[in-house]
Amino acid sequence: MTKEITIEKKVLSENERLAAELGNKMVLNGVLSLNIVSSPGAGKTSLLEKTIRDLKDEYKIAVVAGDVQTENDANRLVDAGGKWVRPLVTGGSCHLDARMISKAIKDLDLKSIDLLIIENVGNLVCPASYDLGEYMKVVLISVPEGDDKPLKYPGMFKRSGLMIVNKTDLLGTSDFSMDQVKQNARSINSDLDILETSCRTEDGVEDWYKWLRKHIKRARKKSV
Amino acid sequence: MTKEITIEKKVLSENERLAAELGNKMVLNGVLSLNIVSSPGAGKTSLLEKTIRDLKDEYKIAVVAGDVQTENDANRLVDAGGKWVRPLVTGGSCHLDARMISKAIKDLDLKSIDLLIIENVGNLVCPASYDLGEYMKVVLISVPEGDDKPLKYPGMFKRSGLMIVNKTDLLGTSDFSMDQVKQNARSINSDLDILETSCRTEDGVEDWYKWLRKHIKRARKKSV
Repeated sequence: MTKEITIEKKVLSENERLAAELGNKMVLNGVLSLNIVSSPGAGKTSLLEKTIRDLKDEYKIAVVAGDVQTENDANRLVDAGGKWVRPLVTGGSCHLDARMISKAIKDLDLKSIDLLIIENVGNLVCPASYDLGEYMKVVLISVPEGDDKPLKYPGMFKRSGLMIVNKTDLLGTSDFSMDQVKQNARSINSDLDILETSCRTEDGVEDWYKWLRKHIKRARKKSV
Repeated sequence: MTKEITIEKKVLSENERLAAELGNKMVLNGVLSLNIVSSPGAGKTSLLEKTIRDLKDEYKIAVVAGDVQTENDANRLVDAGGKWVRPLVTGGSCHLDARMISKAIKDLDLKSIDLLIIENVGNLVCPASYDLGEYMKVVLISVPEGDDKPLKYPGMFKRSGLMIVNKTDLLGTSDFSMDQVKQNARSINSDLDILETSCRTEDGVEDWYKWLRKHIKRARKKSV
């Protein structure tokens, strides 16, 4: 048991070293890098499809699309007009780590992009422990999952800077309460930004773009 | 890296040994033990609440309710009339293992129960690798998650014996196709039993009870 823990610590500290390197590169090149995390099927890819479609002429966007299996998400993002999209199939691993990201973006000219989005594996637990050098983790939860998720998976909500509550078109189909989910999330992380979106009705999507614009601007300023 | 893999193998083989012990105990005592796995918020607890409420006079049911944090699910199951319910808070770990189960059920008189349900942590990846000595893994997916999940998380669907498609009351609110999810699941595991349920409308819940009755009967026969 002790041996197991020691090895895990070594793996994590090696990850932190690589993540710091990645983070520095992003800052130096003025790239806003976001690590999007959620349960399976919460709508990460749908939101990214829409984002690429609507902002691809405004910003240069790169995406690393992680999945345990299949390149389907990456294909969807290319179809949406994504110019630089890389699938990252973990083949069983429950999270992405900094080494995988370094490898995935090794041919990406960071100077040429504004926004790097890393779509993590659908999992509310393990990806919380792995820094990918991102500026911020963005946790997406969807209305049908229930308003108790921040309390049950606190690590992820503690380490995220923005929570997006997606599938708001399904409000009213269950006992999900928007006030309750916000209260639960803020009890874990009082600094959390919160947005509400529906990829189906497009409600709130413009707020997400506004949020992105603000942070892309900041990332650019930092690199000057 | 090699060291990490070696240690992981040791942990898994120790888990297999303990799981085999647990499995033997279940068989000898005629207990049907099920390991229920799903994404966060797919409806494991809702289905179990209903099951306990409806079958508690027919069968003696025990539940181990796993969660990363909070004992809320266990409390809900006690409120539903559960007579033997134990919360199992992992405090960060992304799955349950056989050692946790052995500890959780050490004061349970297996002779006195018909059905042991283990509600795993909400995670479609990691719990696939840990045998808990169960007769069968039951994977629950919910309509809003999308019909592609079996392809993206094949390990879990390969190792399960039953797939329950839950929240069928939300059919029609997205492009989820019941035929497609079945086809995807069977392409991974052709032997999978498949049921459809809605805890909200109660559609299909009786089929789940029928399935349970059949397997409880089988478990009893095996122990004779």
